[in-house]
Amino acid sequence: MGEKTLDDLFLNTLKDVYYAEKQIYKSLPKMAKAASDEQLGAAFEKHQEETEGQIARLEQIFELLEKPARGKKCDAIEGILDEGKEIMEEFKGSAALDAGLLASAQAVEHYEISRYGTLKSWATALGMKDAVKLIDQTLAEEKKTDALLTKLAETVVNAEAQAAA
Amino acid sequence: MGEKTLDDLFLNTLKDVYYAEKQIYKSLPKMAKAASDEQLGAAFEKHQEETEGQIARLEQIFELLEKPARGKKCDAIEGILDEGKEIMEEFKGSAALDAGLLASAQAVEHYEISRYGTLKSWATALGMKDAVKLIDQTLAEEKKTDALLTKLAETVVNAEAQAAA
Repeated sequence: MGEKTLDDLFLNTLKDVYYAEKQIYKSLPKMAKAASDEQLGAAFEKHQEETEGQIARLEQIFELLEKPARGKKCDAIEGILDEGKEIMEEFKGSAALDAGLLASAQAVEHYEISRYGTLKSWATALGMKDAVKLIDQTLAEEKKTDALLTKLAETVVNAEAQAAA
Repeated sequence: MGEKTLDDLFLNTLKDVYYAEKQIYKSLPKMAKAASDEQLGAAFEKHQEETEGQIARLEQIFELLEKPARGKKCDAIEGILDEGKEIMEEFKGSAALDAGLLASAQAVEHYEISRYGTLKSWATALGMKDAVKLIDQTLAEEKKTDALLTKLAETVVNAEAQAAA
């Protein structure tokens, strides 16, 4: 067994998520601008505000660990967001664009739900109660956003299916 | 409004997931080999078998669409799997490796759950009943795998937290 422990893994993933949230924060205004559906645009704008709070919570966790808040390039979020950009370009001006934006946003939410779920399980095992509370707040927001996007998809996607028929 | 429709978006994402499943299929034996926990290794092996069936279901959907089964490079899964490889290298031989493998596998599962959820919603809107059935079977398997990994994480992560203390 080497020297690396669950603490190292926690910090590693915290940096990964911190980088990811900052990239998401930058991409949301572009998605809001691209959306034709007003409610979808508003949902992206609201989630950008939430993301600001989520970044602040991550910074609080870095503080609890007495570590500088520093991101680490996250290939996963880069790939997920690149795919979203590709869809935005390929489906620009088409009736299917909003459905594509929704799909990209839900891929982002699921990535975050998976990462915060992991961080919560590790923080719990490591007895980091204050960190668990902060992670839980963000996790609840991400799940709520995903549920809202699923609901929006019902109306948006049905309208777009009619355009496709 | 351009010419692209929800049908195009569906085919686009089907190709993306087909590529992703094939990459996942290739990566699972490496993850199984890297796992120290016997149950975790067995879970990865079982999921590789399942993935084979999931690839076959995607091929059935291509057939229903009368399109050749062809993948399209999926940056998202590349990024998620690259991050997993990085963790495997960085935490090789350490007490935290299994926790890292579990986290990577859950990021993969969440990506798939998001993509199949999207495909299901589009197939439903487009009236593709047979495709919906096939997608639903895979979606149920992916959710079950994620739940199993969450359960495994409880024991694995707690043991690793003790090693970290």
